[in-house]
Amino acid sequence: MNTSFASLTEFRSLLRAMPACDDAAMAEARAHDAMLTKPPGALGRLEDLAVWYRGWRGGARAEIAAPQIIVFAGNHGVAARGVSAFPAEVTAQMVSNFEQGGAAINQIARVNGASLDVVPLSLDRPTQDFTVAPAMAEDEFTEALRAGWEAVNPEADLLVVGEMGIANTTSAAALATALLGGGAEFWTGRGTGVDDAGLSLKTEVVAEGVALHADKGDGLEALRRLGGRELAAMAGALARARALRIPVILDGFICCAAALSLARTAPGALDHCVAGHLSAESGHRRLLGALDKEPLLELNLRLGEGSGAGLAIGILKAALACHAGMATFAEAGVSDA
Amino acid sequence: MNTSFASLTEFRSLLRAMPACDDAAMAEARAHDAMLTKPPGALGRLEDLAVWYRGWRGGARAEIAAPQIIVFAGNHGVAARGVSAFPAEVTAQMVSNFEQGGAAINQIARVNGASLDVVPLSLDRPTQDFTVAPAMAEDEFTEALRAGWEAVNPEADLLVVGEMGIANTTSAAALATALLGGGAEFWTGRGTGVDDAGLSLKTEVVAEGVALHADKGDGLEALRRLGGRELAAMAGALARARALRIPVILDGFICCAAALSLARTAPGALDHCVAGHLSAESGHRRLLGALDKEPLLELNLRLGEGSGAGLAIGILKAALACHAGMATFAEAGVSDA
Repeated sequence: MNTSFASLTEFRSLLRAMPACDDAAMAEARAHDAMLTKPPGALGRLEDLAVWYRGWRGGARAEIAAPQIIVFAGNHGVAARGVSAFPAEVTAQMVSNFEQGGAAINQIARVNGASLDVVPLSLDRPTQDFTVAPAMAEDEFTEALRAGWEAVNPEADLLVVGEMGIANTTSAAALATALLGGGAEFWTGRGTGVDDAGLSLKTEVVAEGVALHADKGDGLEALRRLGGRELAAMAGALARARALRIPVILDGFICCAAALSLARTAPGALDHCVAGHLSAESGHRRLLGALDKEPLLELNLRLGEGSGAGLAIGILKAALACHAGMATFAEAGVSDA
Repeated sequence: MNTSFASLTEFRSLLRAMPACDDAAMAEARAHDAMLTKPPGALGRLEDLAVWYRGWRGGARAEIAAPQIIVFAGNHGVAARGVSAFPAEVTAQMVSNFEQGGAAINQIARVNGASLDVVPLSLDRPTQDFTVAPAMAEDEFTEALRAGWEAVNPEADLLVVGEMGIANTTSAAALATALLGGGAEFWTGRGTGVDDAGLSLKTEVVAEGVALHADKGDGLEALRRLGGRELAAMAGALARARALRIPVILDGFICCAAALSLARTAPGALDHCVAGHLSAESGHRRLLGALDKEPLLELNLRLGEGSGAGLAIGILKAALACHAGMATFAEAGVSDA
């Protein structure tokens, strides 16, 4: 499962042959949890997280020691339509900021003891404007998926994927509209902060793209037509993490739109993922609903970069630290209920 | 403001002379936040947290380096009424578990780089059963407040107070009922997990206590009559933190009931506190509403020990790390919107 792929067909085959959760490891984890020095269920979602994590990692009880954050960056032809509050050159400027440690995700990674990799994807060659053509040709799309696949560190024990790409909430809204229906206005939000006129234009651009590309194939085909290189790379990284049995924390609207394209291609493709947070981007709550994921945090973020999921690393680390580090009633000599 | 107190009268005087938030430091923090490399407001609550924290700490931008967690433990006479799912000896057993590193809060403190102090309060001498007499005589109450006051490390830059005490959700429900009205059934929950019959008995015990002690004085007097040593110590520690300008993250239902007694004694007494989480204890949402605090986390915890607030330390650390560590648009050469 750790070989790469040369074609989209090979990637699709890999997606259909992904490992499943280890039910025996989950059962052992649940039994261990029941013996820990706390009233049953008193750690709430931390207990469920620990059991879920053990199901994917299997094996011995262990803390989370090597979380990896990867930020993928891409440029979008559709940015030329004026759908963002920021100019397209900000993508490359922010990549430089990530590399120099000055962005929010650098601080969040540091606080949570996570490594941070930054992967710019052909920034000088934006994707096609999806209102006139598919965003990516098949070879460009495959290359972006593979960049994501290969960016995952096989030694990581938790993965967060984030993104930077001016105009990429437009791309994400188009993907959600194409794959889930409901109309462009249902999924299009303010992104980095467009005004009412900007939102109206952005919604129109999403509708145009969806009219051109909807119902032309499965989730991956929608991702090729309406996505961007950083969204494709996120999908590739999510798939690789599954192949490596590395649990994933999903970030905001754009990450979840990329994830949706996998879920609509291979059912269960996101079983190794939890939702890190509910963002302030208007469509995110509905998108998480479509993915059947309950967010861990709700802090009104709308930054991307993996920031919300990065914050949730601390929650997951604490869940596993409790699971692996707490004494049992018997060990501590504490009377049971 | 760092001297201790010899009497309840002196404590009340200290409460009335507490320092206020530094408006100039807040304004400087807000202006700095506006220059950081992110769309305005894109870090959501993290930005508000950083500005609020700077307002209390004042001075230069700095990360959170020395968070302190203190767990106070006390025993309750009312436990003899059978209001808990666990026997009273569990309080002392869990103190030993804290001291040996086996409890949830030990793991949560470690993951978040916090120091952990455990302060058992006369465990072999439970408070009076509040259905027959005030829980504490005035000297006992003053001693417990002072234990909390003195447990705060003046070098800490963030404080979490937690508790352990079999039957203390009964005490907290009685305090909330006495100070906020609404009836015992409105505030009494399942605590560590009593069944329907247990909940019914517990509600009756709360109602009995409130009938005996309500309307006999202010928040502190209610705390003396219906609280416990660990609740009084939490109140003392919250007051000391305010005197030292150390921001506080409030924990669950019991911590918030202790905090309520301060708020009902001196308006604004909790301005240096944020709510760490919404717990699964049924009255906690309403109690946070009465305190006008919005929780940072909602993970269905109902453990106490400072566990929910301890988890939120990571969020606050990340907020200050972003505030202090991010580059400005000018520093990073990133184009503004």
